Amino acid sequence: MIRFECDYTEGAAPELLQRLIETNYEQTPGYSEDCYCDSAREKIRAACDAPDAAVHFLVGGTQTNTTLLSAALRPHQGAISPSGGHISVHESGAIENTGHKVLVLPAADGKLTADMVDSFCHSHWDDPTFEHMVQPGLVYISLPTENGLLYSKGELESLRKVCDKWELYLYVDGARLGCALAAEENDLTLADLYRLTDAFYIGGTKMGALFGEALVIRSDALRRDFRYLIKQRGGLLAKGRLLGVQFDTLFTDDLYLRIGRHAVTQALRIRDAFRAHGCEFLYDSPTNQQFPILTGEVLAELGKDFAYSPWEKVDENRTAVRFCTSWATKAEDVDTLIAALDRVL
Amino acid sequence: MIRFECDYTEGAAPELLQRLIETNYEQTPGYSEDCYCDSAREKIRAACDAPDAAVHFLVGGTQTNTTLLSAALRPHQGAISPSGGHISVHESGAIENTGHKVLVLPAADGKLTADMVDSFCHSHWDDPTFEHMVQPGLVYISLPTENGLLYSKGELESLRKVCDKWELYLYVDGARLGCALAAEENDLTLADLYRLTDAFYIGGTKMGALFGEALVIRSDALRRDFRYLIKQRGGLLAKGRLLGVQFDTLFTDDLYLRIGRHAVTQALRIRDAFRAHGCEFLYDSPTNQQFPILTGEVLAELGKDFAYSPWEKVDENRTAVRFCTSWATKAEDVDTLIAALDRVL
Amino acid sequence: MIRFECDYTEGAAPELLQRLIETNYEQTPGYSEDCYCDSAREKIRAACDAPDAAVHFLVGGTQTNTTLLSAALRPHQGAISPSGGHISVHESGAIENTGHKVLVLPAADGKLTADMVDSFCHSHWDDPTFEHMVQPGLVYISLPTENGLLYSKGELESLRKVCDKWELYLYVDGARLGCALAAEENDLTLADLYRLTDAFYIGGTKMGALFGEALVIRSDALRRDFRYLIKQRGGLLAKGRLLGVQFDTLFTDDLYLRIGRHAVTQALRIRDAFRAHGCEFLYDSPTNQQFPILTGEVLAELGKDFAYSPWEKVDENRTAVRFCTSWATKAEDVDTLIAALDRVL
Amino acid sequence: MIRFECDYTEGAAPELLQRLIETNYEQTPGYSEDCYCDSAREKIRAACDAPDAAVHFLVGGTQTNTTLLSAALRPHQGAISPSGGHISVHESGAIENTGHKVLVLPAADGKLTADMVDSFCHSHWDDPTFEHMVQPGLVYISLPTENGLLYSKGELESLRKVCDKWELYLYVDGARLGCALAAEENDLTLADLYRLTDAFYIGGTKMGALFGEALVIRSDALRRDFRYLIKQRGGLLAKGRLLGVQFDTLFTDDLYLRIGRHAVTQALRIRDAFRAHGCEFLYDSPTNQQFPILTGEVLAELGKDFAYSPWEKVDENRTAVRFCTSWATKAEDVDTLIAALDRVL
Repeated sequence: MIRFECDYTEGAAPELLQRLIETNYEQTPGYSEDCYCDSAREKIRAACDAPDAAVHFLVGGTQTNTTLLSAALRPHQGAISPSGGHISVHESGAIENTGHKVLVLPAADGKLTADMVDSFCHSHWDDPTFEHMVQPGLVYISLPTENGLLYSKGELESLRKVCDKWELYLYVDGARLGCALAAEENDLTLADLYRLTDAFYIGGTKMGALFGEALVIRSDALRRDFRYLIKQRGGLLAKGRLLGVQFDTLFTDDLYLRIGRHAVTQALRIRDAFRAHGCEFLYDSPTNQQFPILTGEVLAELGKDFAYSPWEKVDENRTAVRFCTSWATKAEDVDTLIAALDRVL
Repeated sequence: MIRFECDYTEGAAPELLQRLIETNYEQTPGYSEDCYCDSAREKIRAACDAPDAAVHFLVGGTQTNTTLLSAALRPHQGAISPSGGHISVHESGAIENTGHKVLVLPAADGKLTADMVDSFCHSHWDDPTFEHMVQPGLVYISLPTENGLLYSKGELESLRKVCDKWELYLYVDGARLGCALAAEENDLTLADLYRLTDAFYIGGTKMGALFGEALVIRSDALRRDFRYLIKQRGGLLAKGRLLGVQFDTLFTDDLYLRIGRHAVTQALRIRDAFRAHGCEFLYDSPTNQQFPILTGEVLAELGKDFAYSPWEKVDENRTAVRFCTSWATKAEDVDTLIAALDRVL
Repeated sequence: MIRFECDYTEGAAPELLQRLIETNYEQTPGYSEDCYCDSAREKIRAACDAPDAAVHFLVGGTQTNTTLLSAALRPHQGAISPSGGHISVHESGAIENTGHKVLVLPAADGKLTADMVDSFCHSHWDDPTFEHMVQPGLVYISLPTENGLLYSKGELESLRKVCDKWELYLYVDGARLGCALAAEENDLTLADLYRLTDAFYIGGTKMGALFGEALVIRSDALRRDFRYLIKQRGGLLAKGRLLGVQFDTLFTDDLYLRIGRHAVTQALRIRDAFRAHGCEFLYDSPTNQQFPILTGEVLAELGKDFAYSPWEKVDENRTAVRFCTSWATKAEDVDTLIAALDRVL
Repeated sequence: MIRFECDYTEGAAPELLQRLIETNYEQTPGYSEDCYCDSAREKIRAACDAPDAAVHFLVGGTQTNTTLLSAALRPHQGAISPSGGHISVHESGAIENTGHKVLVLPAADGKLTADMVDSFCHSHWDDPTFEHMVQPGLVYISLPTENGLLYSKGELESLRKVCDKWELYLYVDGARLGCALAAEENDLTLADLYRLTDAFYIGGTKMGALFGEALVIRSDALRRDFRYLIKQRGGLLAKGRLLGVQFDTLFTDDLYLRIGRHAVTQALRIRDAFRAHGCEFLYDSPTNQQFPILTGEVLAELGKDFAYSPWEKVDENRTAVRFCTSWATKAEDVDTLIAALDRVL
C-alpha cells in the first residue's frame, strides 16, 4: 500500500531527524527557552523581514488556532471563516469550546473575499439588534486553503483593508504554508504575510517536522502574555528544544521551501496524469493536494494499492477524493501511481 | 405611538400584578424554596399530567436555554438547531460561550423535520473523521417557532423517534408556548410535550409575566443537581417567590391559555386585515406574530403611528415586518391599526 | 416566625412597588432602552458625580459579577478575592465557569488590604515560573464585606494605588452598598467609589428592589460592547424598564440612602441588645448584618420564633449566626426579638 | 554547567530514539490509529492486568489533566486537589479555563488523605447552602507527588473508598510514575492503580520519551467518546505513531521501570551525599526529586557549575531547592556533584 491520503504519514525529513539525533544528549532548559528555539526564532524573523516579530512554537495546528483565537477574541466576538475552514469543520468544536462562535460565510471554493467579509460586517452592524448577535472579531483563512488554493497578494491586501475598516484581526492558518510559497502561481512572501496579517503560523507537521507549528505574531495586543496562554492550553512543550531544533533546521538553507517544492512537484505530476486521462477535478489546486473526481469502480481498483482520502460525493457514480504529497513522497511511488492510472483509467 | 413590535412592551398581566401586590410584604425563604413556588410547581405538574416532573423557575429565555443546554451536552457535543433558531441567531453567542457549537440545519420556514435530523446524524456518523467534528447531542426547536409556526403532534413524535435513534436530547423553547397552545391548528397538549421531550420551558416573559420561565424536565440525567447549574449561571433569583407567585397565578383558572387566546385572536384580526388588502406574508403564522410584506412607502406611513419590527428585506421595494400581540394588546388599538390599513393600503 | 435570616425575604419597598403599578400598562421598548432606564442612569450618574459613567442594569449579583469579571479578564488572568468573598464561596463556581481562577488571599476579617495584594503580586511576578501560574488581573472586594465590614476611603485609596502599580482592575461588589453608605463610620461617597474603582455595582435586590443591580463602569476598556456581554450571559431583561423604574425611584429623594439607614438602625438595635447581654460577636459589623456568637440552647430557643442564618461553628458549644435587617424590617419585630433576648439570655 | 533542575533537559532515551529512527520512513495512518499505537496499547493493558482498559496517548501532562478533568466534571463540579497539586499551581489556570474550580485542601506534605476528602465532602453536603457552592466531583492526586512522595496501597485504597462513598472520580497524575514504581518503599503496581482509580496517566515526557503521556481509563462513563475530547483540546497528534513507537518501546523489556530505577538510584546518591553533610531536607523523598535546604552562600557556589530549581524560602538564610535526576543522568555527573558538595559544605 502506497499512502497518498495525507501529508503526515511518515516521521521527520532526514535533515531534521539528523539534528534531533545530534542534539539528543545535550542539556537545555525547558519550555522553548533554549538556544535552538532562540536561533529558530531569529531565522524566522529574518525570513519574514520582521526583526521584532513575536515567534512561538506550538505542537499542533488545532492547538495553535485555538490558542491564538481565544487570545484575540473578547467573549462576545466570533471568528469569520469560510465554509470548509478547518476551525469550522475539523477541530471537534475546539473554537466553540473556548467560548467563541465560528461565523461561517458560504464559500464554494473555500476562499474568503474582502467583499464577503465587508457585506457580512455591514449586515451585523446595520441590524438594530446587533447586540443580540455575535460580533465579528477576527478573519480566519488558510493558505493554501483546505482545498489547496492560493490567495494572491492583491486578495490578501483587500482582506487587510476590510479588516482595518471593521477592526478585525486577520489570521492565516499556514499548516501547509510551504506548499503555497512553493507554488508557481504564488506571489506572496513571508514578509508580505507578516506585513498584511496580525498573526499567522508556519506549519511544521505537514511540512517535514515530526510535529510543531511556528506562530508569528505582529499585533502588539495579541502578543502580550502569550506564553501564559500557550501553557494554559497545554501547548508549552516541556522539551521545547525539539521544536527549536526542527524549525532551526527548516529555516536553514531554504529547506522549508525546498520541501514545499518537492511536494508540489510530485502533486502536479499526479495532477497531470489524471488530466491526461481526461479526469475532472473538484478544485484546480496548484499545491500538494489534488482532488480528482473518479467513479466508484476506478476508486475500488486504485484502492487496492493506494491510500487516498474520500472528500465529497459529486454524483451517483462519482466521488472527489484527495491525493496528497509531502517531503516524503518518492518519485518512484508517483511513477507507480501514474502507471496504475494508465492501466485503470 | 401604538407598539406592536414585540410581546414585552408592558408590565404584568393584571391578575399577576395583583398577586404580587398582595404578597409583597410577606416573608418567605429565598431562591424559589417558598410556598408560592411549591404551589406553582404542583399546578404545572398537574397541567403536564406529570406528577414527578422537575420544574424550575428562571428569569429569562436566553438564561434558560443556556443553562439547560450546557447541562445536557458533554464538551464535544453540539445542539442541532434550525437556521433562524433563537440560540443560533439572537443570543449573542451564549451557547458557544458555554463551549458548545450550534449545529445549524438550513430550514426555509424555521422548522426542523425528523428527516433533516436523521440525515445530518447519518452524515456525521458515516464520516470516517467523525471524531474531528462536533457530535450532535441535542435537538433544539421552538414552539411556536421564531416565525410563529407550529409543530403538529405527528411532527413532534417523529422528532422524538429520531432523537431516540441517535441518542439525542429533545428540547423545546416555549417562550411563546401559550400562543401555540391557543392556536386553532394546534393539536399538542402540555402533557404531550412532557411525554415527547426531555425538557421544555413554559415562557412567562412573553405571556403576561413581568419576567420568568418555567423549565420542565423529564430526563433523569438532566435534572440531576439542576439548582447548582441555575445558580452558577446567575439564574437563581434571590426573591424567587416572585416567580412562584406569577406562575401560580398563570396556572390558576387557565389564565395561561386565556392569555394565549387573547393574543392570538388579536393577531389574527391583524392578519385578516392585511389579507383583505391583498397583502402577502412571509410566513403563514397561526399565532401571535404576523409577518406581512410591505412596500417602503406603506411602512413609512404606518411607522408614524405604529411600532413594528423590521424582519427581512424581500426585494428592492418590499420588506417583511413583524407585528406582535400579547395579553396587553387592546382590541381598540387593533381597530386603529385596521383603520389605518384601510387608509394606507 | 419572624425572619431575620437574610435581606431578601419580602418583595419591593412600597415606593418602588407603587411606581411599578403606575407604569404597568405603559408601552416601552425592551432591553433597558426605555425612558425609565434613561432617567435612572442620569440620576445614578449625578449621584456619582460622573456625567459620563456607563451604567447598566442587570438582574442579580452573581450575574453582575460574572459578566463584569469575564469582560475584564483575559483567559490567563484571575481575580484576587479575600477568602470568604462571594465570588469565591457562594456563586457555585460561576467565575471559574467563565474560565477564570479566583485567587483567594486569606483574610481573617474578610477584608483585603493593599499590602496583601502587593505581596501576592510580588510573589507572582518574582517567580521564575510565573507564566505557569494564573496572572492576577483584577481585585474583587465587597462593600460592605460579606461579614458587614467597611473599607475606609484611605483603605480604598491604597487599594487603588496598588492596583495601578500592578495593572489590576479594581471592582467593588456593592450588593448591600446602601448599608455601607448609611453606616455612621463610613467616609466614602458614591463619587469616591466612582473615582477610585474601575467598576462597582449598586445593589438593588438587597436594598428594596424586587431584583436588580446597577453596574457603574468607569474604565473605557471595560465598558466597550458591554451590552453584548450582558445579553450573552442572560442578563438583558426583556422588560428592562422594570429595572429602570426601580432604580429611578431608588435614586429619587435619597430613597436608596434612607433604606440603608433604616436597615442599619434596626441592625444596631439588635446588636446593642445582644451586647447588653454580654454577647460576643464574630465580627464588629456597623451595617445591616450582625453575627452574634450563641450557644446551642439559646439558638434552639430563639429558633422557635425567629429565622436566622447559621454562619460558623466557633467552638464545641457555640455558633456564630447571622441576623439581617432590610428596608422591610419592622421596628416592632425588632422589639419582639429584643424582648425574647431579655427572656432567653 | 550540569543540569539537575528538572527531568526533561535531554531528548529521548536511546532505545526510543533508535526506534524512532528505524520507523521514520514507514507510512502509517495518522491520529494514533497505527500499528505502533495498537501494540503499545496492548502492552500497557498487559502491564496493568487490564485487557479491556481504554488507553489514549496525549502529548503533555497539562493537556492530559485538562482533557480528563473536563471530560469527568459537570459544569457545577470541581476537582479536589492537595495544595501544591500541579493542576492547582502550575498549569496557568488550565482547569479553571475549562470551567471548573480546583478545590484545594491544605496539605503540608502535598498528600491528600481519605480523611481530608471525607471531611471536605461532609462540609459541602452538610451546608444548607450547598447548591451555592462548587460540588466536589473528582479527586486529583499525583504519584509521586509534586514533592516526590509516595502513596501506599493502603492509602490509595482508603481514597478509593471515600471516593465511592461520595461518588467522586479518583484520578492519578503519573507524570513521574516510573519513579514511584521504582522506589524501594513502593508497594503499588500498575494493576493496583488500574483497579483502584477511574483513570491515571503513565508519564512519558519525564520518563525518557521526547514527549507523550499514556492515559489509562477504567471508568466506562469517562472513556466514552474520548477521542473527540482529545481532538477538541488539541491533543490528537497528527503523527500519532510517534507516541505509539515510544510507549511500545518503554513497555518492552521493562524499560519503563528500568528508567525509573536509574533515576531513583542517582537521586538517592545525591540525597545521601547531602545527608552525609548534615543537610536537612524539605521533604523526605524516596524518588527522583530531592529537596535539600541550603544557605545562600552554598547555593551561589553550587550554582556556578550546577543548575537546580529554587523551591521555597525556608528562613532568612536558607532556601529549599530541587535536584532532579532522570534516565539521562550520568553517574559521573552525580560524582562531580558529590565532589562539589564535599568541597562546598
